[in-house]
Amino acid sequence: MTVASYGVHSEVGRLRKVLVCAPGLAHRRLTPSNADDLLFDDVMWVENAQRDHADFVNKLRERGVEVVELHDLLAATVAMPEARSWLLDRKIVPNEVGVGLVDDTRAFLEGLPPRQLAEFLIGGLATTDLPDEFRPDYVALARESTGIRQYLMPPLPNTLYTRDTTCWLYGGLTLNPLYWPARHDETTLMKAIYTFHPDYVGSTVWWGDPDEDWGQATFEGGDIMPVGNGVVLMGMSERTSRQAIGQVAQALFTNGAADHVVVAGMPKLRSAMHLDTVFTFADRDVVTLYPSIMDGVHAFSIHPTDRAPGIAVTDHGSRSFVDVVAEALGLPGLQVIETGGDVYASERQQWDSGNNAVALEPGVVFTYDRNTQTNTLLRKAGIEVITIVGAELGRGRGGGHCMTCPIIREPVSY
Amino acid sequence: MTVASYGVHSEVGRLRKVLVCAPGLAHRRLTPSNADDLLFDDVMWVENAQRDHADFVNKLRERGVEVVELHDLLAATVAMPEARSWLLDRKIVPNEVGVGLVDDTRAFLEGLPPRQLAEFLIGGLATTDLPDEFRPDYVALARESTGIRQYLMPPLPNTLYTRDTTCWLYGGLTLNPLYWPARHDETTLMKAIYTFHPDYVGSTVWWGDPDEDWGQATFEGGDIMPVGNGVVLMGMSERTSRQAIGQVAQALFTNGAADHVVVAGMPKLRSAMHLDTVFTFADRDVVTLYPSIMDGVHAFSIHPTDRAPGIAVTDHGSRSFVDVVAEALGLPGLQVIETGGDVYASERQQWDSGNNAVALEPGVVFTYDRNTQTNTLLRKAGIEVITIVGAELGRGRGGGHCMTCPIIREPVSY
Amino acid sequence: MTVASYGVHSEVGRLRKVLVCAPGLAHRRLTPSNADDLLFDDVMWVENAQRDHADFVNKLRERGVEVVELHDLLAATVAMPEARSWLLDRKIVPNEVGVGLVDDTRAFLEGLPPRQLAEFLIGGLATTDLPDEFRPDYVALARESTGIRQYLMPPLPNTLYTRDTTCWLYGGLTLNPLYWPARHDETTLMKAIYTFHPDYVGSTVWWGDPDEDWGQATFEGGDIMPVGNGVVLMGMSERTSRQAIGQVAQALFTNGAADHVVVAGMPKLRSAMHLDTVFTFADRDVVTLYPSIMDGVHAFSIHPTDRAPGIAVTDHGSRSFVDVVAEALGLPGLQVIETGGDVYASERQQWDSGNNAVALEPGVVFTYDRNTQTNTLLRKAGIEVITIVGAELGRGRGGGHCMTCPIIREPVSY
Amino acid sequence: MTVASYGVHSEVGRLRKVLVCAPGLAHRRLTPSNADDLLFDDVMWVENAQRDHADFVNKLRERGVEVVELHDLLAATVAMPEARSWLLDRKIVPNEVGVGLVDDTRAFLEGLPPRQLAEFLIGGLATTDLPDEFRPDYVALARESTGIRQYLMPPLPNTLYTRDTTCWLYGGLTLNPLYWPARHDETTLMKAIYTFHPDYVGSTVWWGDPDEDWGQATFEGGDIMPVGNGVVLMGMSERTSRQAIGQVAQALFTNGAADHVVVAGMPKLRSAMHLDTVFTFADRDVVTLYPSIMDGVHAFSIHPTDRAPGIAVTDHGSRSFVDVVAEALGLPGLQVIETGGDVYASERQQWDSGNNAVALEPGVVFTYDRNTQTNTLLRKAGIEVITIVGAELGRGRGGGHCMTCPIIREPVSY
Repeated sequence: MTVASYGVHSEVGRLRKVLVCAPGLAHRRLTPSNADDLLFDDVMWVENAQRDHADFVNKLRERGVEVVELHDLLAATVAMPEARSWLLDRKIVPNEVGVGLVDDTRAFLEGLPPRQLAEFLIGGLATTDLPDEFRPDYVALARESTGIRQYLMPPLPNTLYTRDTTCWLYGGLTLNPLYWPARHDETTLMKAIYTFHPDYVGSTVWWGDPDEDWGQATFEGGDIMPVGNGVVLMGMSERTSRQAIGQVAQALFTNGAADHVVVAGMPKLRSAMHLDTVFTFADRDVVTLYPSIMDGVHAFSIHPTDRAPGIAVTDHGSRSFVDVVAEALGLPGLQVIETGGDVYASERQQWDSGNNAVALEPGVVFTYDRNTQTNTLLRKAGIEVITIVGAELGRGRGGGHCMTCPIIREPVSY
Repeated sequence: MTVASYGVHSEVGRLRKVLVCAPGLAHRRLTPSNADDLLFDDVMWVENAQRDHADFVNKLRERGVEVVELHDLLAATVAMPEARSWLLDRKIVPNEVGVGLVDDTRAFLEGLPPRQLAEFLIGGLATTDLPDEFRPDYVALARESTGIRQYLMPPLPNTLYTRDTTCWLYGGLTLNPLYWPARHDETTLMKAIYTFHPDYVGSTVWWGDPDEDWGQATFEGGDIMPVGNGVVLMGMSERTSRQAIGQVAQALFTNGAADHVVVAGMPKLRSAMHLDTVFTFADRDVVTLYPSIMDGVHAFSIHPTDRAPGIAVTDHGSRSFVDVVAEALGLPGLQVIETGGDVYASERQQWDSGNNAVALEPGVVFTYDRNTQTNTLLRKAGIEVITIVGAELGRGRGGGHCMTCPIIREPVSY
Repeated sequence: MTVASYGVHSEVGRLRKVLVCAPGLAHRRLTPSNADDLLFDDVMWVENAQRDHADFVNKLRERGVEVVELHDLLAATVAMPEARSWLLDRKIVPNEVGVGLVDDTRAFLEGLPPRQLAEFLIGGLATTDLPDEFRPDYVALARESTGIRQYLMPPLPNTLYTRDTTCWLYGGLTLNPLYWPARHDETTLMKAIYTFHPDYVGSTVWWGDPDEDWGQATFEGGDIMPVGNGVVLMGMSERTSRQAIGQVAQALFTNGAADHVVVAGMPKLRSAMHLDTVFTFADRDVVTLYPSIMDGVHAFSIHPTDRAPGIAVTDHGSRSFVDVVAEALGLPGLQVIETGGDVYASERQQWDSGNNAVALEPGVVFTYDRNTQTNTLLRKAGIEVITIVGAELGRGRGGGHCMTCPIIREPVSY
Repeated sequence: MTVASYGVHSEVGRLRKVLVCAPGLAHRRLTPSNADDLLFDDVMWVENAQRDHADFVNKLRERGVEVVELHDLLAATVAMPEARSWLLDRKIVPNEVGVGLVDDTRAFLEGLPPRQLAEFLIGGLATTDLPDEFRPDYVALARESTGIRQYLMPPLPNTLYTRDTTCWLYGGLTLNPLYWPARHDETTLMKAIYTFHPDYVGSTVWWGDPDEDWGQATFEGGDIMPVGNGVVLMGMSERTSRQAIGQVAQALFTNGAADHVVVAGMPKLRSAMHLDTVFTFADRDVVTLYPSIMDGVHAFSIHPTDRAPGIAVTDHGSRSFVDVVAEALGLPGLQVIETGGDVYASERQQWDSGNNAVALEPGVVFTYDRNTQTNTLLRKAGIEVITIVGAELGRGRGGGHCMTCPIIREPVSY
């Protein structure tokens, strides 16, 4: 498949190519005392998380999906000297490693084989990883620093959620400025791949560049769904801001890539939540959602307009988000499958990513095994549900949708 | 006084010129629900805080200090069209106000008198501040956004602490990259003043530029003390990182501005604390400090060296910070005045900025009235203590040292 | 005045006798690190808090109110040997001071003058308060314990809020089981006074006894208002539970003391809030309230019934609490004065106890000085507003209503 | 086996009889929003937790241990009318269910079969569990209440940790007053069993009675280890107080059950931690411990004395706890196996209960599978390690030691 074929044209059309990232060194560095800083709720048993992730990948491949993995792509990328220099020029700088450690750290990393360098780029480089011959007296200051500052390169455990960092929206992609500073470097890694890796060079970028400062304009793939029919759903949340939504809408409209953005204004009380943690598609006209949150969503539409700056906002007031989406897709309505079970069970299952389904094709989704009641409701509605073991992977509060970044997904007809 | 005379050559030499910022609109916007985001512990009664701040300013002026105020400087700056454009070009951009609000917001602000514009620049611009004729449909999205994202320009209540944003270190200054994103724009305001205001144009800048991204290299004036004798003390804390300390040391050494940086590695448990919240000077050889924290400080020295990158680090191991500082100043020792009272009282007084003294001249300091036991100990040691009313001002957890940015302070002899 | 005359027959009738408690030793023990355990948000400058509290007391006395103070009452009580024994038998027990410290601690306290004993009973007794001759080897364990366990008697800083501990409801009172274990001993002190102090012996107790375990049945005066006309308002909150409300209603009905309880079901999101922090009376038909919270209140009525257990609950559904209260009082409606100012100011003023007014007589209330906008609205409505300095007293998040426990208040006619 | 044979005479001697509690209804009621109140960090997949717990029980039985389960014991207990009445008299009271619901709730529960009643007693009774014919109008108030107050009987998910509620210490037991009010009812259930169940009637109780109020004297089995040789180790922590330790020491000494209590003063920073989360025995002279915490433990000894109150405290100052324990057991030293792996791995494994081993007999322990590095170190030291699946069970932050309450364990020789 060539870059020309890349593109995501729906949420449930046949998935052809997808990017994932296996758990690894970054998760071995997660501890109860640093988990908050690294945006994880709990630690995981990395070996089992790797086993369960590999099983997920195998199931995708068995069903004909081409799965590419971030460590692999990055290793292939940094095997190219110009890509390696491009990345180290950005990462091994006084602002990150400290002025007294730049030369030694760079020298150490330059000498590594590509695979090992990729592992440190994702997993982080601690001062204790530096061999003795690369440890100047300045290391004492670094050792004494707190939290993320003691690292020479910070661990990036949220790479597990490839969904967030880049979004293919129809025929082009966005390189997303993520909300938390602790995740910013993820986008730099992705830019390196799209800039240098031969399988990705030439991809169309609609918006975003990790070399720029985006201020309040933050954008995360967990909030974004190119549902087809020229429509993109965007959750306006703590992490995805109106400042970014407006710009991406403008870019999509200008490029003719879409002509309607439906904004889901997430309730303020749970502002950290991505749209895909409470709402995903299981078939062309079937969604699974968590009503306690979705009932509080305020819907807006953004359409192109001739007047500068080219976007017009419509406030849908008290109309339900689901109805607005159905209308945008030209459907009479959407079949809604709510999180299953009683009030306790549904809250538990939402928490365990019960609504975070990712579709293989229309009517076939992956979900975690543990949300048995929601899975049963999906099956009763005729959806084929393939389960992933969530005991470890689910501890980071993300499911199959979060862990996958589709690169090629076919359209569905509406 | 001209720019050529600017410079801070000690912590206790005669204070000649100082920058402060009065409480105002930004503090009127502080509420229990947004205070955390804006880094305040509590709300304040703004009218009384203004009265107490004015009293502090008057006392400074009565003792011959030239006091300049941030709203005044900024109003004079934005009265110059090129300065106004420079600032609005940075503030009124799609990344901050949203693509659909740039033109109207800019049009509204362009029409304001300089004083009012300065007030919005510091106090923040809410969507509700926009008159009807400047409110496009896009305002609906902004209203629905959460927290700081709903503002067109965010409130900057921490401007009250002018100490942090810029530091005069001997004959030049630093434009500091502050730790919290919510404070970044403070440095942009200061750069506008130093770039355009006739009283400040031509100042020497050692390091820092708010138009660049400094990553982990964050630096706050509350941690920095140019104590004289070519020495600068730097607290390495949550807010002031080794990544910045190394660069500033390098810049000072290269310019011949200093030849010794003493680093106070703050204990990890209280990492958010600035050095000046637990340690300040009251006279050339007298300090007031909070022992519970200062006993856990790990001291390092940075000296110039011929080998690239020009800085060498010495780890002082278990030597006391106070002893290292005394030696650096060529003194046999420092007289230490600890926070007063029993274990309860001293913890209370540290919290109420009891150690956050700012000197008018050797042996004369300003402190809050409420820390009566520490004030008594200072007085018994022969220090003249002038009190400021802290009932409101102290609620932001900063005292006289935090609220003052010296621009001219004379040296003391060692 | 004799016990027979005691009773509170309204929220705004002439206040004749009231109980307060001055700040003191307990507040000197409050520090940033123990404030949470002791349920305070911040520390206060005790000397100034005492001054402002004394000023409040003086203003009450100037207007003809008899003010009694808790330290005074307690000192008079423990001057009686049987009262002293009664209290020490409950406080100086192995479960509280530790089996190895009972004898020495009791011996030390038995030897104190009544005033000093009262101060330790309210202010707490630390191991460091024990003179050497009363310190067995067991003290080592106590010193090493954490938090409240290191005390031999815990500090009771919330005694400042005399409103909560006991409630006069018409002609009798309740001895309240308070929600937080850290406050339980407050009620024991009050029981000692009502059991032994000659001015209080013989008072009618409707319900409550600190010698019993009340489980989930907790009850705090900040939620309770005997508004007259046989009606009592009760906030059902985190602190005042339905388990207590039902029992008190039953006791009042059985004794013929009231015939209608209006329950204000406080919104779950702010469950810690007492009713009187968001709703108080300023005149017989005038209330001041904070709409953001009060709009979410769910109203119920409890009436007597012949069927066991003698109470019947009516759910008022979506009817407004204010309307239900007006009807219960036989009024056509209540005039509502909302917290003043814009969205920022009203949230700030609610936080600063802006709605926590306490009436001296119909149309005359005490409030904190700092809530200037709400005070202005009250005055415009014809209410006489007498201000208290809130700079220190207000830091505990309670105002004049919280700091007063009326013992005699006259009825108003409805 | 008869009551006369009951007793725990060591930490590692042959385990003959043990009490556990299977996950169930109480854990189905755990949600992200109530987990904090119920003292859980996360929710669990109850079906899998049940499977893994059953596997643990099976492994115990295969090795010859008699395992009794709490639901079973309680069902057998409430099958006896006097036991059922005893329990319902304590649980279905106005202070817990509300005065308006006592009769209906009692009537409903009286009609249940014993097994179902036992499940509600442990799992909690929600208002929604009441059939329509048992729902008076008062239910409206309960439905509107928050958190634990809305239950008629609260869920007791911490019953999973049978270790805490009662402790067999040599030939008798303690009925522990637990620290958190949310756990108090667990001890009431245990008292019912020890009072009525024929297999337990006649057991010797050293101390504790859930019908009394113990104030600050709280005591949890996770802190208590009867190691043999007349010695009991007691962690003095947030949950186990000196007020209880002194009383239990006194009771043991008076009854001649022990003659030495070694107190582990847990570091204040991690005060919530039970001793057995950082220190357990794997063989008669082998312990596994987490050094980051254990290095901060302050050791004391309590011995009998003739002087009232019969206990004498020795402060061991800077002597290591491990050395004090070894000496108390008459051993030259203890072999220490630290939590395995680098700084990240050891912190992760302590968190995942890596040091929370429970011995089957000397040199044979159960631990969670996930702590592979610590398990390897134990095996290298010659310990037989039998693993339990911890994916779900471990989410409550307790391991095999926490989940077992030994009833018969043989001595080891020292």
